[in-house]
Amino acid sequence: MIKTDHTHDPAAQSWVVSANQASSEFPIQNLPFGAFRRRGSDEDARIGVAIGDQILDLRHAAELGRWSADIQALLAPLAQGDLNAFMGQPPAARLALRHALFEALLTGSKQEAALRTALLAQSEAEMLMPCRVGDYTDFYTGIHHATTVGKLFRPDNPLLPNYKWVPIGYHGRSSSIGVSGMAIRRPWGQRKAPDAEAPVFAPSQRLDYELELGAFVAGGNALGEPIGIEKAEQHLFGLSLLNDWSARDIQPWEYQPLGPFLAKNFGTTISPWIVTMEALAPFRCSFERPAEDPQPLAYLDSAQNRAQGAFNIELEVWLQTAAMREGGLPAQRLSQSNFRDAYWTVAQMLTHHASGGCNMSSGDLLGSGTQSGPLPEQGGSLLELSQGGKQALVLANGEQRTFLQDGDTLSLRGRATAPGARSIGFGDCWATLLPARAA
Amino acid sequence: MIKTDHTHDPAAQSWVVSANQASSEFPIQNLPFGAFRRRGSDEDARIGVAIGDQILDLRHAAELGRWSADIQALLAPLAQGDLNAFMGQPPAARLALRHALFEALLTGSKQEAALRTALLAQSEAEMLMPCRVGDYTDFYTGIHHATTVGKLFRPDNPLLPNYKWVPIGYHGRSSSIGVSGMAIRRPWGQRKAPDAEAPVFAPSQRLDYELELGAFVAGGNALGEPIGIEKAEQHLFGLSLLNDWSARDIQPWEYQPLGPFLAKNFGTTISPWIVTMEALAPFRCSFERPAEDPQPLAYLDSAQNRAQGAFNIELEVWLQTAAMREGGLPAQRLSQSNFRDAYWTVAQMLTHHASGGCNMSSGDLLGSGTQSGPLPEQGGSLLELSQGGKQALVLANGEQRTFLQDGDTLSLRGRATAPGARSIGFGDCWATLLPARAA
Repeated sequence: MIKTDHTHDPAAQSWVVSANQASSEFPIQNLPFGAFRRRGSDEDARIGVAIGDQILDLRHAAELGRWSADIQALLAPLAQGDLNAFMGQPPAARLALRHALFEALLTGSKQEAALRTALLAQSEAEMLMPCRVGDYTDFYTGIHHATTVGKLFRPDNPLLPNYKWVPIGYHGRSSSIGVSGMAIRRPWGQRKAPDAEAPVFAPSQRLDYELELGAFVAGGNALGEPIGIEKAEQHLFGLSLLNDWSARDIQPWEYQPLGPFLAKNFGTTISPWIVTMEALAPFRCSFERPAEDPQPLAYLDSAQNRAQGAFNIELEVWLQTAAMREGGLPAQRLSQSNFRDAYWTVAQMLTHHASGGCNMSSGDLLGSGTQSGPLPEQGGSLLELSQGGKQALVLANGEQRTFLQDGDTLSLRGRATAPGARSIGFGDCWATLLPARAA
Repeated sequence: MIKTDHTHDPAAQSWVVSANQASSEFPIQNLPFGAFRRRGSDEDARIGVAIGDQILDLRHAAELGRWSADIQALLAPLAQGDLNAFMGQPPAARLALRHALFEALLTGSKQEAALRTALLAQSEAEMLMPCRVGDYTDFYTGIHHATTVGKLFRPDNPLLPNYKWVPIGYHGRSSSIGVSGMAIRRPWGQRKAPDAEAPVFAPSQRLDYELELGAFVAGGNALGEPIGIEKAEQHLFGLSLLNDWSARDIQPWEYQPLGPFLAKNFGTTISPWIVTMEALAPFRCSFERPAEDPQPLAYLDSAQNRAQGAFNIELEVWLQTAAMREGGLPAQRLSQSNFRDAYWTVAQMLTHHASGGCNMSSGDLLGSGTQSGPLPEQGGSLLELSQGGKQALVLANGEQRTFLQDGDTLSLRGRATAPGARSIGFGDCWATLLPARAA
């Protein structure tokens, strides 16, 4: 169990003064990891920690700072640009580095002068994939999403019988995962109208987003060896935001009997920053099931998981259309929800994944599935908000949307909050939809 | 289009005399790639080429042989143990190395004396994963398998409406792929009897194999850029055998709506050798659809694919139970089929995969799906041969099997044959099933 410690003190301030602004997602209490290079350069990827509107470049920090031998050893792979190697360190080591970085960035630290030269403004950085994702799996833990989408197909029986027993998931495509700002191009694909004799191969007309979180694995297990629910938290490194771009017209035609494929694998976007489990400790909350629901089977149940398996993370979706951008209008919020409403915890996702012996590795990514809230306006996708495309959303500038249009910029935002704690964020998870390739 | 050349001359012989035996799967006409280390050592993985009962160690061959500058450059990544880098070379370069190795191993070659010391007996080698598999996708191209399995669930309508239009596939788990001889442990998992109130979490009782081929990608495409069907052959490196181990009792409970997950990800076994597309050139054959079937959509159709998109590869499944092994009895053949019966070609699998813009990389693996023949006794899995577990197979020693038992050794074999051509193989794709972990 990760204990709350002084790195969560809401009064703590950094000599990087932008971190102390209430609006900053990256106060000294956060310290999330990302990879970057100087914009416009072709430098190798570097690992950094976000602090205010700056990045602490861990290669420079390892060279310039004064660190204990233990911390210097932990910084070594990070200075080489290898976050995966650091992810494989035990929880105590990860916490030790957090403490060292916190102390070094704290107002009054003797490290200030040395580390000032290890800062790069976020505005001057191009963000890169933070780690190698060996395998990516997407789960389906948003019960309100599963219910709403199920109703579109099965009004009388929206939730399948396995939903409350199995943390449903499927393997995704790791190669097409990128960070905020990546190019997402409207895909071509097969679709078939219900009354058509044959399918057509054409650009998707029902392009959608899905509001998810991603969990990164820390350390792994050997093939054939499960990860018990009591050990699962030790094998989690942190969370990001995740947009599971989805082509709603490709999926119904292709997905029987083996699941979604080209409807999903044209791109997945994550936020530029991975917020660590250590940083998220104050935002853990209880995981509760309605009394009338089945309780998790023993291999998915633990006292710790019940007491604090969930996360209080407020989630938002924002849309800026091309017309808004050209007219100087800001993005508009489409929906709000909270990760604490997930029907399965991240620990349960990981334990279930490894329960048959599947081997997990540092850097593997687990998507949470779409996180919709209980109310209709809290849908985490346009499929839900437009009732399957039947009811267009009318935007503030008069535009309408059932699904995304070329040029739309879609952003996910997340904020972990708790009474008495300094709130922290992930950075926007955004991309602008490019038109389909010409025939 | 790969032309037949003198490397396919059936009369060609090697100074590695075991390669000249008619029974050898690795004559000089084959030259497949694999990775190995000396058994019992902890050396780094080396890349080698199988020749007879030997392996030509390409690290030693690069040092000891006399090669042109071009060939030496092609050998450089292979000498470093990096098959993925070589996979990214253009087809002409891959063919050039094949010619150079063929000449060097040919009877009468001046390289014989130098390269003799670069040989290691296969019996002294431990085979390793030949390359890094970034992403693994499993298709479903065996129409006889899809029909037979479909009949178990939907007697009146066994093939789903999309089957003849879409090369159905789904993302698999890359971390749990291993080579012949790997440990495969019976997985635990959730299953639910139709009349039970709740599922149980217990070891699988319906553990099965699937007879497949694997295709390795050569070179890749950028995210958002498809691979046209005319270019697909250039992006294929070669084929292996592949066993898609399957837990038949886990799959029905977990797979709706997102597809198979834990029923598959506890392990996948490939043959130790990847047979290159160049070596397979004589065994290509026409890809034909019954006249009454829909012809492929334009993006999946080309004259070359119709003329020689398929492969004549005879496939077999062999079982040796623990009792057979203890009694000194050899393995028993369970079934035979042929890869030319696949309903989609490997080129179509690759083109479809990238048709929405999904980016492929060297070393990515595409499974073919279970290759069953048209007759009931040609099923490529026990699910088919035992009619869904209803009819046990009686083995020659009197044992019975509906599904696999602990201690069973299951082997896949493949042999590419054509009139006038020297037949070539892959090496056995085998593993022995270990009992489930204790609770």
